[in-house]
Amino acid sequence: MIKDQDFIKNPNVPGPTKEEVRCIVICKSGVKPDDIVVDIGCGTGGLTLEFAKRAKTVYSIDINPDAIETTKQNLEKYGLTKNVEVIEGNGFEALDKIEKFDLLVIGGSGGKLPLLIEKGYNKLNNNGRIIVTAILLETCAEAISSLDKLSLKPDVVNVSISKGEISKRGTMMLARNPITIISAQKGI
Amino acid sequence: MIKDQDFIKNPNVPGPTKEEVRCIVICKSGVKPDDIVVDIGCGTGGLTLEFAKRAKTVYSIDINPDAIETTKQNLEKYGLTKNVEVIEGNGFEALDKIEKFDLLVIGGSGGKLPLLIEKGYNKLNNNGRIIVTAILLETCAEAISSLDKLSLKPDVVNVSISKGEISKRGTMMLARNPITIISAQKGI
Amino acid sequence: MIKDQDFIKNPNVPGPTKEEVRCIVICKSGVKPDDIVVDIGCGTGGLTLEFAKRAKTVYSIDINPDAIETTKQNLEKYGLTKNVEVIEGNGFEALDKIEKFDLLVIGGSGGKLPLLIEKGYNKLNNNGRIIVTAILLETCAEAISSLDKLSLKPDVVNVSISKGEISKRGTMMLARNPITIISAQKGI
Amino acid sequence: MIKDQDFIKNPNVPGPTKEEVRCIVICKSGVKPDDIVVDIGCGTGGLTLEFAKRAKTVYSIDINPDAIETTKQNLEKYGLTKNVEVIEGNGFEALDKIEKFDLLVIGGSGGKLPLLIEKGYNKLNNNGRIIVTAILLETCAEAISSLDKLSLKPDVVNVSISKGEISKRGTMMLARNPITIISAQKGI
Repeated sequence: MIKDQDFIKNPNVPGPTKEEVRCIVICKSGVKPDDIVVDIGCGTGGLTLEFAKRAKTVYSIDINPDAIETTKQNLEKYGLTKNVEVIEGNGFEALDKIEKFDLLVIGGSGGKLPLLIEKGYNKLNNNGRIIVTAILLETCAEAISSLDKLSLKPDVVNVSISKGEISKRGTMMLARNPITIISAQKGI
Repeated sequence: MIKDQDFIKNPNVPGPTKEEVRCIVICKSGVKPDDIVVDIGCGTGGLTLEFAKRAKTVYSIDINPDAIETTKQNLEKYGLTKNVEVIEGNGFEALDKIEKFDLLVIGGSGGKLPLLIEKGYNKLNNNGRIIVTAILLETCAEAISSLDKLSLKPDVVNVSISKGEISKRGTMMLARNPITIISAQKGI
Repeated sequence: MIKDQDFIKNPNVPGPTKEEVRCIVICKSGVKPDDIVVDIGCGTGGLTLEFAKRAKTVYSIDINPDAIETTKQNLEKYGLTKNVEVIEGNGFEALDKIEKFDLLVIGGSGGKLPLLIEKGYNKLNNNGRIIVTAILLETCAEAISSLDKLSLKPDVVNVSISKGEISKRGTMMLARNPITIISAQKGI
Repeated sequence: MIKDQDFIKNPNVPGPTKEEVRCIVICKSGVKPDDIVVDIGCGTGGLTLEFAKRAKTVYSIDINPDAIETTKQNLEKYGLTKNVEVIEGNGFEALDKIEKFDLLVIGGSGGKLPLLIEKGYNKLNNNGRIIVTAILLETCAEAISSLDKLSLKPDVVNVSISKGEISKRGTMMLARNPITIISAQKGI
């Protein structure tokens, strides 16, 4: 797993998704070497890079041009450009240009999460998985209700991480903001 | 409870103890109008002010002159100077100048926590209580082991708070650093 | 604060609200001796008893007859029956029978939270406060959006507590389920 | 990652390490196909099985015969017996029988953590890693201080997970006990 501090960052771009959260997302995704992955709201590229190392193809989408630029820079830094297509644009529309895929990862939806989940679900291969990483309370509730409408049974995990800062005085635990990971698998 | 943002602050002084943590400390303390309270490592004065409103006398001690100054400013801001004696100095030594008390609150010990707890315990009235607020892992372990040596049964509570920041996009939860509150009561 | 284990319990009744959470709710409520409090979804009576000690009158409402019975038993155990009226019934309808009040505490709403908040708000005295304690993600989102519609600015606090279990081997932290406390104050 | 509920369990054996924690431990371990792994205090075998899938050889040690039996059953259930040697006994002594290794994972130490870390460190190959998973406050402090004595700079992560239980009423977050993962790498 690439360390948080090793990503190229841009002040206008959120992320990268913290190392420990990337660990859990990659785990929950069950990503396999043959998988086609769509990463909507790729931000700094934290998850895009991890999927690039483990999947066949990754489509990384963000509406923010700075995010696209930063993701590209990070892909180049780690030599991972080969199997990643970076798309600047709205996630909902970008999905039209992509055929079937195995994994839909949503880190940002521009307020259209239910539509995005529904459309993404329809393009998902059998046994494909949807993963939403939510930092907003409302996104959690929306993701769960959208997946429920598709008769999926989401796995919901709230992750609160604090990291130890060690000094002469001792180890102070510094909290990271909590994040909720909602995942579900499409039946056959 | 005074709001966090309403305290006068100084960049060289930690605190104030966050509102929700002050709530729990005041609760756990069982402070009564007749109580004499000693607050070691008073910092910004967050807990000192809350005890000043609820106890007979408060001795507030800090080795950092800026902390002493900031606590005084906050006491003045809220008209709470009357029953508080502010003492600049080492907590362990300052205890010599104070007779018996009912409540010992330790937010900082300068690395002498076991000695401080032992000395404080001896000056504690029957049914008196010791409360340690710890942000370091090592302080937790030390406080528990020191109280255990005095045959006290500490109540140990780790508190992780996150606060909602509401915007157009939704409610983002922002984590505060966790804190552990260790409290114990002296038998009769 | 009454200890969690000192409440009379009933297997069909949730609660009591954990000690540390009651501490924060009481703090956030800013309850005063003249206040009239309405506690909807009183369950075991955890919050009802704390308000009974601090307010003028408390109306405690629950649709579950076992909750009503348990709350009554706890009020009797602590000699706090004098200023509490316990009402079996639906919170939304029960509000009709109560005149103006200063504090509306909602721990359970039977799925009608937006209506309850709106109706409660209208009966709230100026400077009155609404507090919702939510254990469901959806309740958080609903409470925030309902308060937002009333142009209130809710304070949102998620509280995760873990308690130390001390044994020969050391101190194991046992997690309590997280709870979110949403509070707001009516303007003049 | 194997699901928590898919492990064979024994009431006398702690574990398995929860899925999300296994994700983070595997990540932090940086385990590679050529690695030799030592898992002390293997319990139910949660981590042993994950390492068995990713490393060359795993030595799994536990002093509790029931843990040994349960780990064996789980290895058989998942066809992972081939590269795992299960050793009943004290971790400190068992280390004598093992040559150099790349990864030392300590989930239980029988109260001898500092000695275990020191001995393990000496048998660790260059760039080898030590990972301690701690559920006791004291174990955290001890692990950090032991690694510090070896001039290692431990990475300390406290992980608090809560999982959503979805019902008609909504999504209730159920907390898992927090765990701290302390890891460090041996220099060349």
